[in-house]
Amino acid sequence: MRMYDILAKKRDGGTLAAEEIAFVIAGYTSGEIPDYQMAAFLMAVFLRGMDKAETAVLTDCMARSGDVVDLSAIAGVKVDKHSTGGVGDKTTLVVAPLAAACGVKVAKMSGRGLGHTGGTVDKMEAIPHMRTTLSGEEFIRQVNEIGLAVIGQSGNLAPADKKMYALRDVTATVNSIPLIASSIMSKKLAAGSDAILLDVKTGSGAFMKTLEDSIALAAAMVDIGEANGRRTAALITSMDAPLGHAIGNSLEVAEAVATLQGRGPADLTEVCLELCAGMLALAGQGTHDDCRAKAEGAIADGSGFARLRQMVAAQGGDASVIDDASRFAPAVARAEVAAPVAGYITGMDTEGIGTAAMLLGAGRATKEDEIDYAAGMVLHAKTGAYVQAGAPLATLYAADEKRLGAGREKLLQSISFGEKVPALAPLVLARVDKDGVRQY
Amino acid sequence: MRMYDILAKKRDGGTLAAEEIAFVIAGYTSGEIPDYQMAAFLMAVFLRGMDKAETAVLTDCMARSGDVVDLSAIAGVKVDKHSTGGVGDKTTLVVAPLAAACGVKVAKMSGRGLGHTGGTVDKMEAIPHMRTTLSGEEFIRQVNEIGLAVIGQSGNLAPADKKMYALRDVTATVNSIPLIASSIMSKKLAAGSDAILLDVKTGSGAFMKTLEDSIALAAAMVDIGEANGRRTAALITSMDAPLGHAIGNSLEVAEAVATLQGRGPADLTEVCLELCAGMLALAGQGTHDDCRAKAEGAIADGSGFARLRQMVAAQGGDASVIDDASRFAPAVARAEVAAPVAGYITGMDTEGIGTAAMLLGAGRATKEDEIDYAAGMVLHAKTGAYVQAGAPLATLYAADEKRLGAGREKLLQSISFGEKVPALAPLVLARVDKDGVRQY
Repeated sequence: MRMYDILAKKRDGGTLAAEEIAFVIAGYTSGEIPDYQMAAFLMAVFLRGMDKAETAVLTDCMARSGDVVDLSAIAGVKVDKHSTGGVGDKTTLVVAPLAAACGVKVAKMSGRGLGHTGGTVDKMEAIPHMRTTLSGEEFIRQVNEIGLAVIGQSGNLAPADKKMYALRDVTATVNSIPLIASSIMSKKLAAGSDAILLDVKTGSGAFMKTLEDSIALAAAMVDIGEANGRRTAALITSMDAPLGHAIGNSLEVAEAVATLQGRGPADLTEVCLELCAGMLALAGQGTHDDCRAKAEGAIADGSGFARLRQMVAAQGGDASVIDDASRFAPAVARAEVAAPVAGYITGMDTEGIGTAAMLLGAGRATKEDEIDYAAGMVLHAKTGAYVQAGAPLATLYAADEKRLGAGREKLLQSISFGEKVPALAPLVLARVDKDGVRQY
Repeated sequence: MRMYDILAKKRDGGTLAAEEIAFVIAGYTSGEIPDYQMAAFLMAVFLRGMDKAETAVLTDCMARSGDVVDLSAIAGVKVDKHSTGGVGDKTTLVVAPLAAACGVKVAKMSGRGLGHTGGTVDKMEAIPHMRTTLSGEEFIRQVNEIGLAVIGQSGNLAPADKKMYALRDVTATVNSIPLIASSIMSKKLAAGSDAILLDVKTGSGAFMKTLEDSIALAAAMVDIGEANGRRTAALITSMDAPLGHAIGNSLEVAEAVATLQGRGPADLTEVCLELCAGMLALAGQGTHDDCRAKAEGAIADGSGFARLRQMVAAQGGDASVIDDASRFAPAVARAEVAAPVAGYITGMDTEGIGTAAMLLGAGRATKEDEIDYAAGMVLHAKTGAYVQAGAPLATLYAADEKRLGAGREKLLQSISFGEKVPALAPLVLARVDKDGVRQY
């Protein structure tokens, strides 16, 4: 088999055989296939596409290119959850404890934030002393004991994806549904859970800006999961505004805690309940309504919050900040942002707001940047709200005045005001599973 | 300007601006743009194409990436000639002297053979002591004195093309009309002539197997030349059978001499007269019929032959082999190939026959291989001929019996016999110039 022939076949719109895809991934991972051939291959895939069978095999080969986590020592149904990334998205910190409280096993690896999006690992590390690296033995024991563990991604999970992503990033081949779907799902397959619930964000703060693209990505990922023996479903949820009010790591932990305690923002609570219900349904816990009721119950009876507290303690974290968010180290500087005009908030450039949070110190412009866990913002009004001129829009937190100024400027650029009530999209726009797509 | 953005633009089917193309070629030539980005770019160009203006600019940038030959010290109209490569194609050795005899200045750089195709420089080097490298001063003086010089391509002509071709060769991006056309024409533009006559071969022994593709390539090259201020025209000529009877370096020199002396094979003579007429027409010497008559006159009066003899002597070659081909060093071994059955020769896989000649020692499988100048074959019958079983098909020449055996086997595999007279395509299938395409 020769890379040249496989390249030519895909270039001409052909369908690759499983052994051809395996040859490409093994060869590229080992370094036998050079970057320039892979770059041409990725551009050919970008422009010619891959069918469901090709994409499923591609993902499986990428998943097997490194360590594959063995969760068989964990009793029960292991359900993973993945978000494609957004602004103010602290759902894992709410949903994982809720699902665990309902009897699902959550043995989850999460990522870090980059650019305008946050990452669960960063939020966890806002909790003093919290460990996000556990040995395999510790990880499995913890899930068996308390039902959940959330750690950072291990170094050798899907190395083919890591190498391919770095190449796609510099060859303008990122934005291809089969390549995005296989990149995400390769890590999920390698992470070893039995079932996978996907939260595909759509809108101004999401990687996918349109519902159509989001559904296509979700469908591709569901197909990959099902073809590889994992029960897989996806919710398409709105990222046309930040989720909840808080953006920034310790601020988001506090908001997650509030949500588990039944006093969270309505949008965040709704999305978390739907995600938890989706995970329970994948674990075979009944109809959507049954599962939704169980999720609501785990908020009402405090069992979800108790699981979060257990996890924090089990991973060495200071649980006192969970009990009392005022114990988080405060930001050095803060500022109020007032509405510049009266009117309805007609739209939020959510990516811009995520960037504002990054400028405040809550995120990273490059992988090497350090995060200020206290930095970020709390929004007092979101899309659809009517504000008077001078009314509070947001409170900003940062390490200094310069950062506050940069964050304020970017935030104000990202909010549109107008005289008409804007139409609001539903929070959950569609569901995708093996039976197809349902749009709302 | 960023390579990433240019890549994304071409990926999405956009039209690149001149400064974007210049950025790509300058960056790739200097090494600032890495192979992997260029590989993705070439695949995007392969699949999205380039329009006439983009292709013209691309070619100009490639031509200017290294040395540009200045022929202004040569008086008169300098006309270049280029063949896309075939089997038995010794036309340059005939046409350049004929055109020079008719008053055109031919200051030509030629290439070497690879694989099934031959190259003019190899054929010239079959003449003992013939120099194919001249200083710039020698080159210009010789053309001013005797009207022609043919040498090998200088090392730094269109280095962008050299680097791009090597990358295309391993990324399955060779067979793209804008990329083939720009590759050929970049070297022609850099070689400095005022006008360019292209001989685009079509058929079983050519790079372009179909007339449609050949016309498209010719049109793209004519557009490039005209857009860059060079009078340019193309003939599409048949390579469905080897041109003439002789394949192999000293054998082809002998056949070129015979053709200049008015005793060459009919097909070779016809193609050479048409090519010479095309060059004279580009030089403004009148109508096609006028030019054709002049070319015929230069054979009839021996002036074309005299120019070849002058060129050989001027470049240090042993002109006695021109006067008497029996003075060429003979091959060590020879063999006759007889027709295995009676019937019409219904087709020749001309690429296969070129490969047979290579196996005999007349060509190179890799750039490092050495050529046996005496090796090759003389065909006694070509497509359309009726042969009796056992009648002579070809005489093979090689260094040993093993090579004779390999050449014989490949030759016989490449010839089809049948009971019906095959339809023969015309030798010149089409002409392409700035006024359009004329098919015959």
